[in-house]
Amino acid sequence: MRIGELAERTGVPAATIKFYLRERLLPPGEHGEGNVVEYGPLHVHRLMLIRALSETAGLSVAQIGEVLTVLSRHSESAFQAMGATLAATHREPKFSLASEDAVERAERAVDRLLAAYDWAEVTPPMYRDALITSLTAYFRLGNSDLGEVLTHWADAATQLASADMESIVEAAGDGGVDVEQTVVTTLLGETVVATLRRIAHIAASARFQAERGPSGTIGP
Amino acid sequence: MRIGELAERTGVPAATIKFYLRERLLPPGEHGEGNVVEYGPLHVHRLMLIRALSETAGLSVAQIGEVLTVLSRHSESAFQAMGATLAATHREPKFSLASEDAVERAERAVDRLLAAYDWAEVTPPMYRDALITSLTAYFRLGNSDLGEVLTHWADAATQLASADMESIVEAAGDGGVDVEQTVVTTLLGETVVATLRRIAHIAASARFQAERGPSGTIGP
Repeated sequence: MRIGELAERTGVPAATIKFYLRERLLPPGEHGEGNVVEYGPLHVHRLMLIRALSETAGLSVAQIGEVLTVLSRHSESAFQAMGATLAATHREPKFSLASEDAVERAERAVDRLLAAYDWAEVTPPMYRDALITSLTAYFRLGNSDLGEVLTHWADAATQLASADMESIVEAAGDGGVDVEQTVVTTLLGETVVATLRRIAHIAASARFQAERGPSGTIGP
Repeated sequence: MRIGELAERTGVPAATIKFYLRERLLPPGEHGEGNVVEYGPLHVHRLMLIRALSETAGLSVAQIGEVLTVLSRHSESAFQAMGATLAATHREPKFSLASEDAVERAERAVDRLLAAYDWAEVTPPMYRDALITSLTAYFRLGNSDLGEVLTHWADAATQLASADMESIVEAAGDGGVDVEQTVVTTLLGETVVATLRRIAHIAASARFQAERGPSGTIGP
């Protein structure tokens, strides 16, 4: 098919397809009759994958490129691919950490949490740093300890990971694990869980306000 | 204090502070002796808040501006503020939905889920659309139904929302709810849970591979 049909079938504008071709996210088409460039089902699938990575996970073009590189390394196991994908799509903190009281409190809270969940040894330094950065920003605002909340978050994360892992193993069946599906599901989960949490928040707030009246009102 | 000291205390470069002043994320300083502009503790706190919103939630400058507007409306309850914040920081899907089989499957899956959790009535259309967009991208790749996974995600989201709600009410005590803290904690949770889920994934993969050997390997 020509680029126009490819655009129509995938919902990706032709100009965007050309951009992906230039950025090598998409392999070039083949020169057919009359030197017209032809695209095939592989291009359709690849464009759907790019859309999925962009839409479900909000990845940048550079991050999508890294994920596609991971997926093309066929020698890797699904779990290695998942790890490499998560590393490639990790959002770097924008500010550096200075030594100060809030940082020390955040470090203590994070290390206590990682130790309690037996995660200290497997946690890549960049994830530990990301958690410390987030908590530092929180403490710097003069907020007190998060207390139980952090434990609730870690429990939810554990349950999510177990459920994901089960579904990967189940989907694999007797054959091998589908690396692409594993990676897309993992990234999809991040966005879907965040959206569902927002919906659950709204539902819980509505219930709370119905029960207690507008006691959450502040100010005079 | 002058802008140099403000930069040093908050870790935000003076050039960035000037940008925030121009964008009205930060109120102007006061003209002191010799026409030097002076900044106070309010500016320190506001810069910490901007850093927190940027670092913990990865918000854009425009989104931070919307959150600050929400926080300045003192008449709102904490729950209303949380709802308004979540709406302001919602990531719009980049592509529009065309009518096709994958969209219909996604719609059915989302509506079934929302009905099962009694969320159908309270879910804002933009969140329903976001879920449909994510699932459509997933189905378009030829993946089969998510099955149990979606339920696990919804369960985790429910638990997260209950825990957050409890902590808000507990932190409020006899006084009113601290709207700023509520909003920051909600946004913080999104990033922290995502990072913890990645760590839990790595831990679960390591355990799985230790137990079963490298059975996740694909390809010849």
